[in-house]
Amino acid sequence: MIKIMVDLLGADNDENLLFNGVVEALNKYDDLIVYACVDENLDTTKYKFDKDRLVIINAKGNISNYDTPTKAFFAKDDSSLVKGLNIYKNDDSINGFISCGPTGIILVSAVLILGRINKIRPALAPLLYAGDHQFCIVDCGANSDTRVQEFSLFAKMGTAFMNVMGVDNPRVYLLSNGVEESKGSDIVKEAYLELKDEPSINFCGNIEANKVLEGDADVVVCDGFSGNILLKSIEGSTKVLGLDVIAQAKKYNIDDETITKLVNSLKYKYDYNTQGGAILLGVNKLVIKAHGAATDETIYNTIIQAYNLIKKDFITKIKESIKKI
Amino acid sequence: MIKIMVDLLGADNDENLLFNGVVEALNKYDDLIVYACVDENLDTTKYKFDKDRLVIINAKGNISNYDTPTKAFFAKDDSSLVKGLNIYKNDDSINGFISCGPTGIILVSAVLILGRINKIRPALAPLLYAGDHQFCIVDCGANSDTRVQEFSLFAKMGTAFMNVMGVDNPRVYLLSNGVEESKGSDIVKEAYLELKDEPSINFCGNIEANKVLEGDADVVVCDGFSGNILLKSIEGSTKVLGLDVIAQAKKYNIDDETITKLVNSLKYKYDYNTQGGAILLGVNKLVIKAHGAATDETIYNTIIQAYNLIKKDFITKIKESIKKI
Repeated sequence: MIKIMVDLLGADNDENLLFNGVVEALNKYDDLIVYACVDENLDTTKYKFDKDRLVIINAKGNISNYDTPTKAFFAKDDSSLVKGLNIYKNDDSINGFISCGPTGIILVSAVLILGRINKIRPALAPLLYAGDHQFCIVDCGANSDTRVQEFSLFAKMGTAFMNVMGVDNPRVYLLSNGVEESKGSDIVKEAYLELKDEPSINFCGNIEANKVLEGDADVVVCDGFSGNILLKSIEGSTKVLGLDVIAQAKKYNIDDETITKLVNSLKYKYDYNTQGGAILLGVNKLVIKAHGAATDETIYNTIIQAYNLIKKDFITKIKESIKKI
Repeated sequence: MIKIMVDLLGADNDENLLFNGVVEALNKYDDLIVYACVDENLDTTKYKFDKDRLVIINAKGNISNYDTPTKAFFAKDDSSLVKGLNIYKNDDSINGFISCGPTGIILVSAVLILGRINKIRPALAPLLYAGDHQFCIVDCGANSDTRVQEFSLFAKMGTAFMNVMGVDNPRVYLLSNGVEESKGSDIVKEAYLELKDEPSINFCGNIEANKVLEGDADVVVCDGFSGNILLKSIEGSTKVLGLDVIAQAKKYNIDDETITKLVNSLKYKYDYNTQGGAILLGVNKLVIKAHGAATDETIYNTIIQAYNLIKKDFITKIKESIKKI
């Protein structure tokens, strides 16, 4: 059986909405058991699913974006996130953990509870599409300030991640404001030199933000702040353009419903949330951070994502790769 | 007469292509004189325009992205950029300067030749659309490393810029990885505190990259590296989505030509290059940096942009505002 724990509380949307995603996933895979961290407001009676494959963990949704990570960790051990992670840590049969809570608090709690592989600095890595080809961005927000030596760590973790995803010798690019070696902030220029000299990765040079979706890169390495700007900007600008295309359709005598279907069919490529969440690379067990604005569809997709990674023995392979770092 | 100097050499495309944009602009405004920095390969004979309103400045296109800015400035005074800027500096009747050359070299040369207003640090500010509403990003790449005190300078210059563009009390946001005051890299968190305490601007808090195109901000303040990521990511991801929409149209029985027209009609909103260039705020005369991959259309639009800014007495108003800083 594949056992996945899902924290349904840290998100903007109500757990009753999100729970639909859990039900859908349980009905898809009959070897799936979900541990759902919820509060007393969840009503599971109205859903049709195999109830023997749902374990309810009663907790509180008392962590918000306004809590500081360490304070939340120490003061709120009854929260869905901290309570859930503690159970997850102690039960080897549970293979994955999903939360929509605040990034910083997930990071701190996962590090303190689950521990880091080889004491490295974890990073958040979402998968996006460039054409039909998937690539990852490391880091997209686990570290707001990144030291130079962490860039090559991110490159190695991203390489290990893409190896598990079936990509041999992934092409690693460094996000910068120009392709030339001389371009970038001081730290990015230093990182370039480190990456260039790193024999264990396939470093291909700098990449500019306007080229990221063109398919050259398998791994885009950046500090967490820039990665967050990149990721959210892709998400936001494609969303706005999509809405614009729909709004203009009438002018060109294109049927509203048809253009909406067309635009929605592309959504998955540019909003990684529709596909699942970002993997927290570098901690001892599989942790996926889903979007704070997750819907039931996000929860469903993230459970499927976790299920597939677990089937691929993701965490064992990542650990093996990271231990070589 | 409005006199604008255009450096046709630093771009990726050939001056003969770009010159079409000059001709088109000359034919649009009969009070426009263009000073074109070109080399001996330009053939103006085949074009139809009022030749009395074109001044040719013979120079060399010997600056590339691989030159270091100060070296290029000192070693290449016969280049179109350095020679052009020197003529521009000494002729008060010329009101604007446009180049598609490398950002760093334009910045260094403009600062050294034209001088800075009040010795402040210049920043590059492009205008983008959020809906029908224009906003600017300051800085988008003049400074790869930004000190904390420069964020409030960028906010003030952006405010002055949007004032000239007709926006009263522009809403200033700080680009960050979360809306909460506690979010951001160390320098962004410090900048937040500075901006919050700055009485001369209308600071509205942090903005995330996925919200930038939603219309809340008139000025988005950021370090030049992040601004470059943001700007190029908007440009690149909307371009890729646009191509995807066109490629999928057939599947939905939408006519190829119609969907291409629709998508192209929106292009101007997300690629500031189609509208002109980024303004180099903080130097003593009007300088516009157009895209390195400029086409004749870009050149035309950038001349129109410069023409309109000059008509609005842009540089006098910016100077007045900046001198109060």
